[in-house]
Amino acid sequence: MKKVGEETLIDKIKMVTGGYSCNVIKGIGDDCAVVKAGNKYLLYTTDSIVEGVHFSRKTFSPHDIGRKAAAVNISDVAAMGGRPKQMLVSLFLPKWITEKLIGELYGGINEECRRYGVKTIGGNISHANQLIIDVFLIGEADKNNIIYRSGAKIGDKVLVTGTVGKKDAWTRVPEPRVKEGRLITRSKKATAMIDVSDGLSTDLLHICDESKVGVRLYADRLPTDDIGRALNGGEDYELCFTASVPKIKDVKATVIGEIIPQAAGRWLIEKNGRKSKLIAKGWDHFAYE
Amino acid sequence: MKKVGEETLIDKIKMVTGGYSCNVIKGIGDDCAVVKAGNKYLLYTTDSIVEGVHFSRKTFSPHDIGRKAAAVNISDVAAMGGRPKQMLVSLFLPKWITEKLIGELYGGINEECRRYGVKTIGGNISHANQLIIDVFLIGEADKNNIIYRSGAKIGDKVLVTGTVGKKDAWTRVPEPRVKEGRLITRSKKATAMIDVSDGLSTDLLHICDESKVGVRLYADRLPTDDIGRALNGGEDYELCFTASVPKIKDVKATVIGEIIPQAAGRWLIEKNGRKSKLIAKGWDHFAYE
Repeated sequence: MKKVGEETLIDKIKMVTGGYSCNVIKGIGDDCAVVKAGNKYLLYTTDSIVEGVHFSRKTFSPHDIGRKAAAVNISDVAAMGGRPKQMLVSLFLPKWITEKLIGELYGGINEECRRYGVKTIGGNISHANQLIIDVFLIGEADKNNIIYRSGAKIGDKVLVTGTVGKKDAWTRVPEPRVKEGRLITRSKKATAMIDVSDGLSTDLLHICDESKVGVRLYADRLPTDDIGRALNGGEDYELCFTASVPKIKDVKATVIGEIIPQAAGRWLIEKNGRKSKLIAKGWDHFAYE
Repeated sequence: MKKVGEETLIDKIKMVTGGYSCNVIKGIGDDCAVVKAGNKYLLYTTDSIVEGVHFSRKTFSPHDIGRKAAAVNISDVAAMGGRPKQMLVSLFLPKWITEKLIGELYGGINEECRRYGVKTIGGNISHANQLIIDVFLIGEADKNNIIYRSGAKIGDKVLVTGTVGKKDAWTRVPEPRVKEGRLITRSKKATAMIDVSDGLSTDLLHICDESKVGVRLYADRLPTDDIGRALNGGEDYELCFTASVPKIKDVKATVIGEIIPQAAGRWLIEKNGRKSKLIAKGWDHFAYE
């Protein structure tokens, strides 16, 4: 395949799929799709983990593979300030699979679901050459307590929860920030939010794109022991958000930058004051020749 | 893997996932999961098509692969009398994939969606060794216009729409019976329904299992030119339903059997009157050593 980024693909898909009916509040291009149902908003998201791409069976137990498949989806609902509710699990099983392994996988999925009050209500099983777990998660949000990628305003602070660029990001089960997501949303001080799954550079630029703003990101303020990994490593599953204030009550987060006008650009400021263009170098499924 | 049927797996998963909250009307074990949302019921289903398992690129164009992936999910919503509404598409793409092929695939998905008034509102793209399209479909039904697999009553007729055991079942795009599903449901005469995706034997026995009834199926009444294929071939995507009457207004369907008490058994009656046990020999992803 010619060098084509996942973003380009998603843009193409957006164009083909066209406009939405009035019940669809948010379509392709945020952490979840949002559909109005009565006075509630329903959040829909799907994310998968693929053997050899997102995990290796050498570093992940079947139990943790299951947990991670659930967690990465729960993180998408957290990133909009929602409550995860129900899950459908699509399993793709290679022929070498054992009943024991399937049991452990489901054990992990269910442990993670129980932790966040999610019920598995359906799914599908199919053969494939690789072990793949594709999860479809349904969440809920109140109409007035939801944050998109698109609300960042000039002058807002940029914050991130916890630490990023974690050394073990690719071998551990992430902890979706559901509680933090809801506190951030209900504070009414936050304006845009995303979960950091592809690396801070890629994900913060999503907020800039959707909000039509620029950004100054301060490298030395990143809560990390490896700036490169924080920017481009991925799999952190922390929440990156913009807010009119530097502190949200009860949420551990670090101010790492500020929102500036779109025309002013997107910059990474290093400790010595040197500016370089902030470029999305994070995880991209399709950034190869 | 030891010889284990998909049914056994699903039963095990049901046990692990446990009870549902009061909003979950129907969990694992029907064509869709059903969740109450205000005065509507939301239907959730997921089904995938996998290269080398459900289709070959020799017999299916990328456009038709896309159409089929959408159609098999729409059929699940049809089987409950619902209206398909929104779709999330999870694409697993091997490295050989071209942009052109992805465009054609999406063209097919969207053609099928447009036909049934469905909007694609989200999805995910990931690498894998095989081309896989995993679809999550959201549908709606009115609380009083929904049919499960579990409502068949002793004395009911068993009917099937259209023809079954189609010779080209595995190489054509099926036509989901959304209109028929809604007419059947709204007639208030039907008691249980399923879509015939795995072969009539397997799918009719699902109705028997969930409704706790027996059945007499008349081989010579099947609308087919190949009884074996009708019973065990799969991929027909017609609707099999039970009803208190032999005819539903405006729906082309054939009476093929009748519901009897569970203790009376499940029988296939041949033309010469010979009875044999009706056994699920249809498509089962896990019926192998």
